[in-house]
Amino acid sequence: MTVTGFTRYPPFIDDLARSESGRLLHAELGRRWPETTDQLVTIARYALLPAGKLLRPMMALHAAEAVGGSPRDVLAAALGMEYLHVATLVHDDIIDADTLRRGRPAVPVAFGIPNAIVVGDHLIFSAFQSIVDSGGAAPPSHVAAAVAALAEAGQDLCRGQMLEAQLVGDLDAGARWYPEMIRLKTGSLFRAVCHIGALLGGADPDVASGLARYGEHLGTAFQIRDDLLSYVATPEQTGKPATSDLNNGRPTLPLLLAYDAATDTSRVELMAVLHRRGAGPGDVEWVAGLLAEVGAVEAARRQMVEHAERARAELAVLAPSASVNVLAGIAHWMTSETA
Amino acid sequence: MTVTGFTRYPPFIDDLARSESGRLLHAELGRRWPETTDQLVTIARYALLPAGKLLRPMMALHAAEAVGGSPRDVLAAALGMEYLHVATLVHDDIIDADTLRRGRPAVPVAFGIPNAIVVGDHLIFSAFQSIVDSGGAAPPSHVAAAVAALAEAGQDLCRGQMLEAQLVGDLDAGARWYPEMIRLKTGSLFRAVCHIGALLGGADPDVASGLARYGEHLGTAFQIRDDLLSYVATPEQTGKPATSDLNNGRPTLPLLLAYDAATDTSRVELMAVLHRRGAGPGDVEWVAGLLAEVGAVEAARRQMVEHAERARAELAVLAPSASVNVLAGIAHWMTSETA
Repeated sequence: MTVTGFTRYPPFIDDLARSESGRLLHAELGRRWPETTDQLVTIARYALLPAGKLLRPMMALHAAEAVGGSPRDVLAAALGMEYLHVATLVHDDIIDADTLRRGRPAVPVAFGIPNAIVVGDHLIFSAFQSIVDSGGAAPPSHVAAAVAALAEAGQDLCRGQMLEAQLVGDLDAGARWYPEMIRLKTGSLFRAVCHIGALLGGADPDVASGLARYGEHLGTAFQIRDDLLSYVATPEQTGKPATSDLNNGRPTLPLLLAYDAATDTSRVELMAVLHRRGAGPGDVEWVAGLLAEVGAVEAARRQMVEHAERARAELAVLAPSASVNVLAGIAHWMTSETA
Repeated sequence: MTVTGFTRYPPFIDDLARSESGRLLHAELGRRWPETTDQLVTIARYALLPAGKLLRPMMALHAAEAVGGSPRDVLAAALGMEYLHVATLVHDDIIDADTLRRGRPAVPVAFGIPNAIVVGDHLIFSAFQSIVDSGGAAPPSHVAAAVAALAEAGQDLCRGQMLEAQLVGDLDAGARWYPEMIRLKTGSLFRAVCHIGALLGGADPDVASGLARYGEHLGTAFQIRDDLLSYVATPEQTGKPATSDLNNGRPTLPLLLAYDAATDTSRVELMAVLHRRGAGPGDVEWVAGLLAEVGAVEAARRQMVEHAERARAELAVLAPSASVNVLAGIAHWMTSETA
């Protein structure tokens, strides 16, 4: 079941983080959240830095450039996409009682739950502020549309979060609701990221909508890929233990597809493994065997590829440019891996 | 120390809730958050309804009307001010581990902390959505300015929340930071409410800024009044026990002014009472005696009146209208009570 070619991020994404846009984003993030004695900024800085790949801000910048906008004009809003993303991580770490994030104590552990709630809220407000900050070069109506896009994505994220909690341990309902759940939970913010980048970059509304669809499909593929990582990569590659999805009872796509395709006996056993939480080594291997038997990993991978290809197709209307190549490259990354 | 004339809300505010604007707000709130099987809407509805006096939405509507706007055009945004207010209450109830709100189990108690976090977040996003929803009749640049005003207020609220937590039990720092703390914690949202109402009502930016200042002073007076309630009204009138501020160690203005004016011996004793939490009946009476001795309640009341008068003065530039009278009446309410 372990498959070559699947890592958390490919070299292409590392290169992007080191590109001029990447350096611009990293520098501006550090400038806006400096070392200080202010407690709120200190905790926000801890949550935001050291930054990850800044994939969402990067996509916002390139969406803006792809429609003829200037990256510097949308820099604040691009970073705002990271604020919203990190706000959801901080609040999720309270909800899931996760103690580690990016290899360090999670914010609620390091600074307490009250501070984690307040800093998460503050990052949400800062995300909206950042859209207005970036709105100077775009028509004012685009700023309002960008705010609406972010508000809608935020509402979707909340809805996805609640739906996911309702589906824990329920593979029957999980199979039915999975597409909607990941669209809300992950697709929505990627949609907003690309939509907002395009709107603030000055795109016509229909071009911006095309980039929004690109983002939603890309985000959906990204979430399926994340679901796949536990099954196709080693824990060293993914940074999380192979049993983590089994232990938290979360219905990942491979599990749901295996459940769909399994015999009644295997379904009962799979449900039992999920309900036990704390899966043992025997459980992990039994699940691995079931997944292989019904081809669940390959089937999930096909769904990922389909979304990534639909994302890439949305770029066809754009004039060729380096930024369009980057956006296409991110989609290509997800279709080029072999499972 | 118990004083006549001070109640949680005067008849004037009750009349306002029953006015045409009040009925419009209550009806629209129920329509937008209906009874449903959807869990997110159900919890949000529980948090929002039955509604209180809807003082903030009411002020947003009248700010819009006072500058010539139509209440119906800003109805969504006016309710959005309540969403943000209630979001902070829901999150505060987690932070403070409060179990009761408006006489019922608080949201975290009734639905659990994870749901309370998510619903609070959702209400924040809904508040921003509501500004865009109401922006149709206003110039697009006013929508962006309104979003910035709400984002700034939200950031201020977070900062005020964190500052207040830092000041618990510290009367020295409390006296120094109190004005800034209540400006952030309470003044900022009232400022945004009036600013946003005016902006979406079509006001010129300088007129809208005047209404923003009205709101900030009014909110500051409102918070001082809230601090005073424990000392000048009976628990039956305020709905909270007389010892609650002593028990949670919060530095209210009368306590801070008493601390400032007290002898060293009394200061030490006052600190000790605050640090004990769970104040007994003897403590409450001793504190009451100290407050009376140094005239702390009257001094706090004077600060409230000063802010309310500065709020009212900001209305002078507006053409006379029923809505200006309402806004002036809210300020007058706070100056007309005698302590």
